[in-house]
Amino acid sequence: MKVKIVISGCLGRMGERIACLAFNASDIEVIAGIEKEDHPSIGEDLSEVLGKGRRGIEITSDFKQAISKSDVLIEFTSPKVTLKHIQVASGLGKKILIGTTGFDEQGIQEIKKTGSETAVLISPNMSIGVNVMFKIMPQLVKLLGEDYDIEIVELHHNKKKDAPSGTAKKIAEIICDARSNLKCTYGRQGLTGPRDKDELAIHALRLGDITGEHRIIFAGNDERIEFIHSAGSRDIFAEGVILGVRYIRDKKSGFYTMGDVLSQRLR
Amino acid sequence: MKVKIVISGCLGRMGERIACLAFNASDIEVIAGIEKEDHPSIGEDLSEVLGKGRRGIEITSDFKQAISKSDVLIEFTSPKVTLKHIQVASGLGKKILIGTTGFDEQGIQEIKKTGSETAVLISPNMSIGVNVMFKIMPQLVKLLGEDYDIEIVELHHNKKKDAPSGTAKKIAEIICDARSNLKCTYGRQGLTGPRDKDELAIHALRLGDITGEHRIIFAGNDERIEFIHSAGSRDIFAEGVILGVRYIRDKKSGFYTMGDVLSQRLR
Amino acid sequence: MKVKIVISGCLGRMGERIACLAFNASDIEVIAGIEKEDHPSIGEDLSEVLGKGRRGIEITSDFKQAISKSDVLIEFTSPKVTLKHIQVASGLGKKILIGTTGFDEQGIQEIKKTGSETAVLISPNMSIGVNVMFKIMPQLVKLLGEDYDIEIVELHHNKKKDAPSGTAKKIAEIICDARSNLKCTYGRQGLTGPRDKDELAIHALRLGDITGEHRIIFAGNDERIEFIHSAGSRDIFAEGVILGVRYIRDKKSGFYTMGDVLSQRLR
Amino acid sequence: MKVKIVISGCLGRMGERIACLAFNASDIEVIAGIEKEDHPSIGEDLSEVLGKGRRGIEITSDFKQAISKSDVLIEFTSPKVTLKHIQVASGLGKKILIGTTGFDEQGIQEIKKTGSETAVLISPNMSIGVNVMFKIMPQLVKLLGEDYDIEIVELHHNKKKDAPSGTAKKIAEIICDARSNLKCTYGRQGLTGPRDKDELAIHALRLGDITGEHRIIFAGNDERIEFIHSAGSRDIFAEGVILGVRYIRDKKSGFYTMGDVLSQRLR
Repeated sequence: MKVKIVISGCLGRMGERIACLAFNASDIEVIAGIEKEDHPSIGEDLSEVLGKGRRGIEITSDFKQAISKSDVLIEFTSPKVTLKHIQVASGLGKKILIGTTGFDEQGIQEIKKTGSETAVLISPNMSIGVNVMFKIMPQLVKLLGEDYDIEIVELHHNKKKDAPSGTAKKIAEIICDARSNLKCTYGRQGLTGPRDKDELAIHALRLGDITGEHRIIFAGNDERIEFIHSAGSRDIFAEGVILGVRYIRDKKSGFYTMGDVLSQRLR
Repeated sequence: MKVKIVISGCLGRMGERIACLAFNASDIEVIAGIEKEDHPSIGEDLSEVLGKGRRGIEITSDFKQAISKSDVLIEFTSPKVTLKHIQVASGLGKKILIGTTGFDEQGIQEIKKTGSETAVLISPNMSIGVNVMFKIMPQLVKLLGEDYDIEIVELHHNKKKDAPSGTAKKIAEIICDARSNLKCTYGRQGLTGPRDKDELAIHALRLGDITGEHRIIFAGNDERIEFIHSAGSRDIFAEGVILGVRYIRDKKSGFYTMGDVLSQRLR
Repeated sequence: MKVKIVISGCLGRMGERIACLAFNASDIEVIAGIEKEDHPSIGEDLSEVLGKGRRGIEITSDFKQAISKSDVLIEFTSPKVTLKHIQVASGLGKKILIGTTGFDEQGIQEIKKTGSETAVLISPNMSIGVNVMFKIMPQLVKLLGEDYDIEIVELHHNKKKDAPSGTAKKIAEIICDARSNLKCTYGRQGLTGPRDKDELAIHALRLGDITGEHRIIFAGNDERIEFIHSAGSRDIFAEGVILGVRYIRDKKSGFYTMGDVLSQRLR
Repeated sequence: MKVKIVISGCLGRMGERIACLAFNASDIEVIAGIEKEDHPSIGEDLSEVLGKGRRGIEITSDFKQAISKSDVLIEFTSPKVTLKHIQVASGLGKKILIGTTGFDEQGIQEIKKTGSETAVLISPNMSIGVNVMFKIMPQLVKLLGEDYDIEIVELHHNKKKDAPSGTAKKIAEIICDARSNLKCTYGRQGLTGPRDKDELAIHALRLGDITGEHRIIFAGNDERIEFIHSAGSRDIFAEGVILGVRYIRDKKSGFYTMGDVLSQRLR
């Protein structure tokens, strides 16, 4: 039987891509899209708005009604909206997948608590490849040991306003958890002296319209290992969402991440 | 206290490199080198022969006497010689590290049996980086799943006589163990038609004096992951031997591989 | 003043992309799109059909009338249609840009002859980056000299039906022109023996949905140079077309390629 | 006939490597090595000192006598010594190859003046690959044009004390000559805002014992070109010296660089 989903934030950049991928998935049915009351497309057909032909999927602001007939809620909105929505959804026993970012500590706690009532999946980055990189990284760091120097190079488009990328920061955090005493640095110039063994240098490149590339380089004596992830488009996040929906649809309750979704593959 | 080692095959390419690294290791003492009776350097000083100054380390063919004062035997000889030596060494309770390759099934069985009497470490490739790659690969394959295509590119110097490299074959074997139904292919030309999902293509490049590089590429929809190992010199194998010596010196008995040496780092 | 263009084959994959890029170029005006008489969109607005809003650009099959008000004809159709169209266009003194592929020798001769009457630009691959690679390659080969081994690695998506790619073949041809006696090979397996100095090995990888990547590797003693081109989407060909339009709009007559378009940048 | 060379600074790191390569070159004869008067090896055999067996090549401090029987002088010493030596050598009509670095403007002028009397070849970096990169770079920059962003990534061993490398600085200088208004930057962190079109970011990585790698990345819309040079050992500089000797041996006079040596390959 198809799993019925509601996409909250259905006309945001991610919402749109998730909808398009879900239309093509034979085991998923989009039953409604949620947008704000004053959104100009309220009342229209989500599929038609996305240029995929009429399918009878209403864009609505009536969250409660929409969610009541569904199995899984997908949230790509703001922390405030998401927290309100998941309370309703969990009260109705619906499974929840959260791609919204920017929660404060209290928000995270609320979401975790919801995990004791229903199945909740949350990940700041839903890409399969990126999450595989996160999962492999601690082992790579530990296996190679302290004789290897580690540096991170990330490439993004020239419109990106911050550096390094959130994903690079997360990788650095994971590396620092796996090997103690490392400290991040962000560029070298002048008479720097020999490299400090405890440096973890992160280099942010900005060029053209590159979607995103992360390269983690490990070098010791006469050996070098590189782990590279590159993204061709933002669809990779939407694909992870589809995978996540399939994961939580049959879970009773619990607080999950994309790491858990991937872990099942190791069994 | 320093661990005392004897290097059997001490003037072979690997034996020489191991000796040089061991001279620099503060916790290791080379007490003798073994060569064949008719080797022209028998009776000379191993360190002096290697251009590292006189250290009083005799090159001898008297295996039994040499081994009797040692803690660990290192074998880089032929299967036949190695099997004879390990019998003697294990009888004297010495730990054994084997880098010799080319054993048949019966030889492997004999070595495994020796592992019930003393600590034996054997690995066809002693490089830390290569063994880390071997260890990570099954997880990478399983985590990425069947929607990712996998291909291997290996680069070696233009004098190499076989293709693909032994290391590339081993990686392919590991990938095939982790994901069923894959079959290896070795080049594409002409009207090949769309790629078969079950292909695992291995591409052997031969150029200049490249020591060795292995690149495993995984690509799915809009995502690509690459794992690259490159070797700068053959010293990487000797460095692994040093690590191996430190691992088995305190083991009572057992049959170990470089995978075990690395596994301790995950604890 | 804006240059007025007509796109013949306007609803083909390339025609559509060229139209969209031209809509955004401030110095170009699309005045008509050409399609076959029986195309269902004949009479409709090209911009509207492409989801870019009504602009009053008719899709028509009346080639002569459409071309008469234009400055430049862009052809992405079949050799037969293209040859018929350029005869008419050149009679009217219009500049011509040809992206159609598959001409036989006689067709090429006809196009060259047209170059004595008007300005004609033709290139099998309009991408700027690919043409830069073509232009740099002979110098790279000659400068590095015969002590460097050369191999080509190309990556494309898993649906591609032929190997190696047309672009890889063209690179190989350029390399062979720059350095005599090389012969192409397409894979290595087994006891190949040492590399023949005259080999130019081409390795075709097929994975995921990779748009296209070409990597030319040169390795000598202790040195290695790599030249890599990667394409993120097929838009790169349409961008080259826009550049080509700007190049030929002011040329009187002559037979040009993308190489000429780029050469002006070296002056 | 063999060209007779004298190596001044013959027991320096570069002098030793040049000597070893020259021993193996069938068209070159090392007739003497020069060292300072108080060097402990004065009077010994250069070949024997380098572990290559006795060849009757004296290490001497008597520069004038040594140079008098030679064809080409190779200098890898200090600016002061080199300037004194080339005056003597040029007076005797000997060809001169200078690998010494650190000359001030006046020193450079003196060397250029010597070029009107005899053939002088000087290059701060003698590697063939690096000089090919220098030669190709301006064209690459101009051909790709101003729509491409350019960044440089260089990797060196963890003992290197300055950043970026001299070679990276030279590449940046060449790029800035080929495209106006660029300014170098050396790292990114925080809310940097969108990339400035005029940035030329240089990223210096320090890891393990990497000899040296320079990667120049160009990215525009949907296209990316990378040019990578990697060095496996410092022998690459000595190999360029051998090539340089062959180049100047038959030149009458003139001031040359490795760029000239390579240019002859384009004819």
